Amino acid sequence: MGIRFTEEYPEVGAAFSMNVKRVLYEGKSPFQKIGVIETTHFGRVLLIDDLVMLTERDEFVYHEMIAHVPLYVHPEPKQVLVIGGGDGGTVRELVKHPEVEHVDLVDIDRMVSEVSMKYMPSVAQKLLSEKVSCHYEDGVAFVKNVDRKYQVIIVDSTDPISVGEGLFTRDFYRDCLNKLTDDGILVNQAESPAFTGEWVQGIARKLKDVFPSVFFYQAHIPTYPSGHWLFGFATKKYHPLNDFREEKYHQHQLTLRYYNSDIHFGAFALPNFVKELIENA
Amino acid sequence: MGIRFTEEYPEVGAAFSMNVKRVLYEGKSPFQKIGVIETTHFGRVLLIDDLVMLTERDEFVYHEMIAHVPLYVHPEPKQVLVIGGGDGGTVRELVKHPEVEHVDLVDIDRMVSEVSMKYMPSVAQKLLSEKVSCHYEDGVAFVKNVDRKYQVIIVDSTDPISVGEGLFTRDFYRDCLNKLTDDGILVNQAESPAFTGEWVQGIARKLKDVFPSVFFYQAHIPTYPSGHWLFGFATKKYHPLNDFREEKYHQHQLTLRYYNSDIHFGAFALPNFVKELIENA
Repeated sequence: MGIRFTEEYPEVGAAFSMNVKRVLYEGKSPFQKIGVIETTHFGRVLLIDDLVMLTERDEFVYHEMIAHVPLYVHPEPKQVLVIGGGDGGTVRELVKHPEVEHVDLVDIDRMVSEVSMKYMPSVAQKLLSEKVSCHYEDGVAFVKNVDRKYQVIIVDSTDPISVGEGLFTRDFYRDCLNKLTDDGILVNQAESPAFTGEWVQGIARKLKDVFPSVFFYQAHIPTYPSGHWLFGFATKKYHPLNDFREEKYHQHQLTLRYYNSDIHFGAFALPNFVKELIENA
Repeated sequence: MGIRFTEEYPEVGAAFSMNVKRVLYEGKSPFQKIGVIETTHFGRVLLIDDLVMLTERDEFVYHEMIAHVPLYVHPEPKQVLVIGGGDGGTVRELVKHPEVEHVDLVDIDRMVSEVSMKYMPSVAQKLLSEKVSCHYEDGVAFVKNVDRKYQVIIVDSTDPISVGEGLFTRDFYRDCLNKLTDDGILVNQAESPAFTGEWVQGIARKLKDVFPSVFFYQAHIPTYPSGHWLFGFATKKYHPLNDFREEKYHQHQLTLRYYNSDIHFGAFALPNFVKELIENA
């Protein structure tokens, strides 16, 4: 039919397009526009405010990398908090770890979960796991008010210019620090060093102001702008490489499509221009 | 003005677009269409048959990674052969190594070098280095007939469906093997595992049929399809990691924007789906 979805990358005067078979859903929550399209080659694609949140073809990269890197560093990730991530992809990876006893997922927008459950059950179905509690409320307020502590907090947010803006502030990072155990780890999606270096620098600057140690690691995500994506790793005690739990990794024998023990190390090897961005943040 | 260049990625029903300030050059050689556009955010862009060969914004990734990885493994890369690469970017990186005494560059299309010299001198200017001999002839025939041997051969080709097709055959790889010294290394551009996995598998299968040991490494190149790019590393003697010349790397102190000693190791850490592609080739 010749229908195309195009995501604009205004920061670099560029765009990425995918051929569309049909539009499965278009709606508007109190917070944002939500859409699901069926593409010719990328499977179903979840759109929020016309930006690609995930495609069935490559969502495994993002979700494996945001979840397994911290979970193979912390020795006992019993309590995990996910801010954002209403699509359920991050939760799906987390509950693969037998050590995880409970996950609190906090997404401001219930409709993201509802739409994902309906149109992308392979991504969303573990939202129904008995280990998982879903809270549809403001993540910033949740972290400020919650009276439990977490070994791992994962910030699985949209970009810093949308409803997710509050998840990129020093105040929020400070509240996360306070709600982490003394050996806790925060991981967040940290944007593209190739296309939005200023966003990376903003995240690096603020994380470094709040956390004792901050690292970044990268992954190849073709349907995110530039395909070159960073994650922040802010930690109170454990070192992302020296404290890699190799034995646990080999015991688990999880079936994964991107993450492995080589990637765990390789992902922290950053190009010079990325190192400079972060050091000069 | 609202002008856009769009590269189609037909293998995955997708496309990537860049905003254009103006068209600087459009021509046709006996072999292919050649174009140069000035974009709003990617600098000047060299197009061959409407495909992005390089952009001034991110060409450093490709050229540093194709050149420095083998040159920091081979202890004495005196004689280097480049097949393709008429734009001069690979040669520019090679001549940064004082150990390199001579580079033969063989590109079938003289016009690629002429256009690059005129419109992208920062990429092409080392084609004039006294260490470099440019041969504008068929690379397949050159390798078959040349009567010298090389420590390193770099195949800096276009895709396996164009004028570069002959550079992806067992016969060509066998001729390269014969023209390498007993401790020689061949590196080639090996396409995208995310978007054209069958091309990767074809390259892997044929290289493994010919060379004693074959490895692959990856890099983030935003303006190539998927941004996830592989290079083949086919070697007679040296191991890409165990034989990394760390001392030489630190002595040289080259100013590079992507490659460093961490990346040298990290780039060989491949995601599971890429390992499987290659193993099942």
